[in-house]
Amino acid sequence: VQEFLVQIDIRLPAGLDPTATAALQSDELRRGRELVDQRAIRHIWRVPGRRANVGIWRADDATELHRLLVSLPMFPYMDVRVTPLAIHDVDGEEASE
Amino acid sequence: VQEFLVQIDIRLPAGLDPTATAALQSDELRRGRELVDQRAIRHIWRVPGRRANVGIWRADDATELHRLLVSLPMFPYMDVRVTPLAIHDVDGEEASE
Amino acid sequence: VQEFLVQIDIRLPAGLDPTATAALQSDELRRGRELVDQRAIRHIWRVPGRRANVGIWRADDATELHRLLVSLPMFPYMDVRVTPLAIHDVDGEEASE
Amino acid sequence: VQEFLVQIDIRLPAGLDPTATAALQSDELRRGRELVDQRAIRHIWRVPGRRANVGIWRADDATELHRLLVSLPMFPYMDVRVTPLAIHDVDGEEASE
Amino acid sequence: VQEFLVQIDIRLPAGLDPTATAALQSDELRRGRELVDQRAIRHIWRVPGRRANVGIWRADDATELHRLLVSLPMFPYMDVRVTPLAIHDVDGEEASE
Amino acid sequence: VQEFLVQIDIRLPAGLDPTATAALQSDELRRGRELVDQRAIRHIWRVPGRRANVGIWRADDATELHRLLVSLPMFPYMDVRVTPLAIHDVDGEEASE
Amino acid sequence: VQEFLVQIDIRLPAGLDPTATAALQSDELRRGRELVDQRAIRHIWRVPGRRANVGIWRADDATELHRLLVSLPMFPYMDVRVTPLAIHDVDGEEASE
Amino acid sequence: VQEFLVQIDIRLPAGLDPTATAALQSDELRRGRELVDQRAIRHIWRVPGRRANVGIWRADDATELHRLLVSLPMFPYMDVRVTPLAIHDVDGEEASE
Amino acid sequence: VQEFLVQIDIRLPAGLDPTATAALQSDELRRGRELVDQRAIRHIWRVPGRRANVGIWRADDATELHRLLVSLPMFPYMDVRVTPLAIHDVDGEEASE
Amino acid sequence: VQEFLVQIDIRLPAGLDPTATAALQSDELRRGRELVDQRAIRHIWRVPGRRANVGIWRADDATELHRLLVSLPMFPYMDVRVTPLAIHDVDGEEASE
Repeated sequence: VQEFLVQIDIRLPAGLDPTATAALQSDELRRGRELVDQRAIRHIWRVPGRRANVGIWRADDATELHRLLVSLPMFPYMDVRVTPLAIHDVDGEEASE
Repeated sequence: VQEFLVQIDIRLPAGLDPTATAALQSDELRRGRELVDQRAIRHIWRVPGRRANVGIWRADDATELHRLLVSLPMFPYMDVRVTPLAIHDVDGEEASE
Repeated sequence: VQEFLVQIDIRLPAGLDPTATAALQSDELRRGRELVDQRAIRHIWRVPGRRANVGIWRADDATELHRLLVSLPMFPYMDVRVTPLAIHDVDGEEASE
Repeated sequence: VQEFLVQIDIRLPAGLDPTATAALQSDELRRGRELVDQRAIRHIWRVPGRRANVGIWRADDATELHRLLVSLPMFPYMDVRVTPLAIHDVDGEEASE
Repeated sequence: VQEFLVQIDIRLPAGLDPTATAALQSDELRRGRELVDQRAIRHIWRVPGRRANVGIWRADDATELHRLLVSLPMFPYMDVRVTPLAIHDVDGEEASE
Repeated sequence: VQEFLVQIDIRLPAGLDPTATAALQSDELRRGRELVDQRAIRHIWRVPGRRANVGIWRADDATELHRLLVSLPMFPYMDVRVTPLAIHDVDGEEASE
Repeated sequence: VQEFLVQIDIRLPAGLDPTATAALQSDELRRGRELVDQRAIRHIWRVPGRRANVGIWRADDATELHRLLVSLPMFPYMDVRVTPLAIHDVDGEEASE
Repeated sequence: VQEFLVQIDIRLPAGLDPTATAALQSDELRRGRELVDQRAIRHIWRVPGRRANVGIWRADDATELHRLLVSLPMFPYMDVRVTPLAIHDVDGEEASE
Repeated sequence: VQEFLVQIDIRLPAGLDPTATAALQSDELRRGRELVDQRAIRHIWRVPGRRANVGIWRADDATELHRLLVSLPMFPYMDVRVTPLAIHDVDGEEASE
Repeated sequence: VQEFLVQIDIRLPAGLDPTATAALQSDELRRGRELVDQRAIRHIWRVPGRRANVGIWRADDATELHRLLVSLPMFPYMDVRVTPLAIHDVDGEEASE
């Protein structure tokens, strides 16, 4: 299992009506929580002032990570940047758990 | 206490001799471990192929974070980008501990 | 309480009709004034020639700042960049009040 | 009198010895305080993790602002970006004082 | 009175019909000429191959400059970058007139 | 004769001693004034806070403009961007003189 | 007569129907050939994988070049970058013909 | 025959309905497989989290490569960057097969 | 085992003497061939006109990849960008071997 | 034989003495002329105000092009960008000769 820094910006299309937007957001929230429960998302934060988040994801490899990201209901509206993460010498127990 | 995404790139000066470099690296490692022990650095990873790291830091505010970063022996050679992090709705127990 | 540099660019959607735009602008102005009154926005300036502003905002942390920014009626059309601000040694009484 | 957003990044030359650096920093601090006292620098903050600051400067025009910036001892090592600032409708008493 | 370098790129919306475009262009031309006559626009050039122009504008300050720019009929479709200009030592009579 | 927008940033080498710098600056100033007198430089402004200038230059073509720019004593330390300028419909007498 | 490097990217609007697109492309091809015949376009190449081209254009000055570019039927959908070209010492007969 | 690094980002238009999208994707997959069978695409990978791929393509020259890329059903929605590849000294049998 | 796109730019320091450069280059070549033999570098190409290469690397994870890259004698002078690669549906036998 | 757009920026090292610079420039000029004579450089222009040139080069493939570029005496100080060029439909006799 490896860790990845995943930075996601969301760009909702201009014409999306409020009901569709609200449904999409609640679907996104539910799927996000499943991924936290499965420990695929280890940590996630919101970037203040933006429809954007920063997360530490876990997956066996880039192929599995892609499958996880595509499963998000908002995937078609996401701009995603992935940085693979290597172990750092100063990191102790907590981070490598 | 707040969390910050801290992305650090290190640019050692061209003329630094190998002994000075090695001393600097071992000082940096020791200070890094102290910050992990004090839980100021909550997580840290290396970016593969680069003298760079990505970390999740904790500090009371930006003023304290600056003091922590300046305490790193390699600070004069660092290019640092800080992103303040807000709590995300899908984040569960582990991340908000 | 901390201070943040907040740079906001507004991109109104192409198809927005003039009445909706005017309503949105007056709602935005009213909410902006409330935030000034609550001292959440400490200072704000317009960037000449752009639908953009530069502000000094105050909030307990990034989570509260995000909540304040999302409360703006034009939030869906905003591109927001936040820089956390640390105290500077040369700053005197006025700025640290 | 007008206001300007002034963003300064400092790049000290690699070969500068510690004594010269310390002298330069204390000269810079003294000159910075003079400019605060003269109200040429209205506010100034440090950007965490960087040798950088963000300030709100006051000057009659761009020619006077340039003269003020050139008077800083670290000017030869600065990368400076200036944004002229216009009055914003939502700004109240405090900011327009 | 100060001078500003004003670089304007125009992005007409995709769906604008030819009659509306022509009307907008002739309104823009008329307003542009008024600003030249009032000496608010001191010089203006077209950038070859682009719907873009480069101008030297005059205004008391950034607030007045913003008001002048907003008065252009194409303002909603403009991307504007403003650079404040300071007097240069080598500049002679003509430029400082 | 054509006009060009010429944006020049100066990067003096780190090791240049103060006497050499002062000599270079006075040579540059003298050559700049000659170019103003010959009307090769029609207007020139300083960009506040930077060793940079913005100018409107006149030359028969790009080949002559290059020769004029290379004649500046600081040419080896300059980063120069040239934008060819076309006549704009709203421009009146003064600019096309 | 001068030469210019002209780099053109074409961005057709999303909603353009296939018949209109085909008509536009054949008009563009015809106008392009006229410009080659008039030797206004001296050389032109396609950039592989993109709706883009790179050309060496000839015109008396930037004003004439702008007129030539505006005459292209696809001009409203083009992003054009122009670089003025100066004679190079190593260039021989062929290029300066 | 030469090799090229081809980096493709796909931007489907906002209004494309799900049936049209699915048809386009299955056409794209079929054409991609033909190109793999013809050994025009030597290798191809997905970039995790993005509608994007990285491939090593083979063609006689840039003109043939352009023809191959234009044959993809999603070509109108692609942003393509091509890097020509030269033989590297350390490369052994496998890569030059 | 996973695959990574690794793009390497080399920036030799200005003062490196020709003998040291030649020794470094032959060490780099030898280490590169070992990595090809160990199938850590699956393919590698030179980018024409640059001290740069593009490679497809194989490693168990980002931590092993970092160790492989650091083992290159020119590592201190390299700027490295790593893109993790996921399996693509159209890819056939050859690429997934 | 194929054509490539080759854009070269030259960055001479700060400490190069005038004699060495002059020798390098005359070697570069001689080698450039040989490449023009061999028709490897088909056209070349100087970019006004910069130590930079734009050329149309001819080579069998990227490997040969790299060998030609490395043969330039100033290669160690060059930043080179290569764009492969495909035949354009509107191009006539002259360009495809």
